[in-house]
Amino acid sequence: MKSENLAIVLVSGGMDSCVSTALTISDGFEPAFLHMNYGQLTEKRELRAFHEIGDYYAVKERMVVDIMHLSAMGGSCLTDTNIEVPYANLDNIEIPISYVPFRNANILAAAVSWAEIIYAKRIYVGAVEEDSSGYPDCRRSFFDVFEKAISEGTKPETEISIVTPLINLSKREIIEKGMEMKIPFHLTWSCYRKEDIPCGECDSCALRSRGFQQAGVKDPLTP
Amino acid sequence: MKSENLAIVLVSGGMDSCVSTALTISDGFEPAFLHMNYGQLTEKRELRAFHEIGDYYAVKERMVVDIMHLSAMGGSCLTDTNIEVPYANLDNIEIPISYVPFRNANILAAAVSWAEIIYAKRIYVGAVEEDSSGYPDCRRSFFDVFEKAISEGTKPETEISIVTPLINLSKREIIEKGMEMKIPFHLTWSCYRKEDIPCGECDSCALRSRGFQQAGVKDPLTP
Repeated sequence: MKSENLAIVLVSGGMDSCVSTALTISDGFEPAFLHMNYGQLTEKRELRAFHEIGDYYAVKERMVVDIMHLSAMGGSCLTDTNIEVPYANLDNIEIPISYVPFRNANILAAAVSWAEIIYAKRIYVGAVEEDSSGYPDCRRSFFDVFEKAISEGTKPETEISIVTPLINLSKREIIEKGMEMKIPFHLTWSCYRKEDIPCGECDSCALRSRGFQQAGVKDPLTP
Repeated sequence: MKSENLAIVLVSGGMDSCVSTALTISDGFEPAFLHMNYGQLTEKRELRAFHEIGDYYAVKERMVVDIMHLSAMGGSCLTDTNIEVPYANLDNIEIPISYVPFRNANILAAAVSWAEIIYAKRIYVGAVEEDSSGYPDCRRSFFDVFEKAISEGTKPETEISIVTPLINLSKREIIEKGMEMKIPFHLTWSCYRKEDIPCGECDSCALRSRGFQQAGVKDPLTP
């Protein structure tokens, strides 16, 4: 709690949060790791990735937050076992069934509460606009408005900004940046459906696989 | 889920949420009750009030959401048993120790997720600016900005507004409105510290007691 330069990093356990961690450190901040359990099917595997990435970067402050109400409310294939995770369709222009309504606001609200308590000045979010499958709460315009809500809804002396270093990058560029920064891709987890080996068929696997292909790099998670 | 006119009401179990419920109904909406458990000391008593008020108004849709991370993070006397709830000081102009950092954003985020799923068009919040002990996330300016975040962060077709019918009222006026609408004051609970009889000494008890006194009405909870 004593660091003058704490920044919270939202760490799902995927590649994007791992690259965000490396960028937080290179920006001169000490990362405090925040993971959200909202009842996603692969939570156990994600949590393992969260801690392995945390160990890799020697992260001291870690917090796992349960926002299980998102799962109790249903409405998304990521949290409702009655709705099947569909096969990937990267050309889909509609908001897919994996959209968890207003998920990022729930996550950010918890992050801001923690940030105000531990005096963290920034919240790093690995959101990617292009590859966000059209989720409305993954766009920079949403984060901009949410920053204003932080400014209005916290103590006058509290200043917390939301940093989205990957927001305009493609998966290919994220992978290239990660290679440059030597991030531990082998510790990350992206699949929405399986916890032992990536299913290769969900949106998240498809985006990851296309990214590695375009970057001309082998994904260490694939055989 | 079939009502065309659902509105979520945030119901702590206090007077303000009870008056808000009556106003929701008189505005022509069917109330869906949402209660947040964030580890407050008097949660058990609040939950009883939530259900008794719900029964009184025959509320069908009810959801209780655990946001226990606010308690795990600490930083407020309402959620951290190591910090004592202070004696009331209604002249205090600083943000008091009962402030739970960015609490209302956490609550609203959950409410919006639920609203988007059950197609509720409004969220009624019994926040009161004057009597909010200076909490920054109880001011209308905060709710205004949060409404913009809802608009940016949800599906294009989703329209959810935050209604704060009590925001500019004094406790006296709220009690007068409640009397007018015949709300069941005897079912509500306000005390921050005790669950059997109100302590009479915390900020919340002091505000309630002053309000009843000013309105010239006897609080049914006092002997």
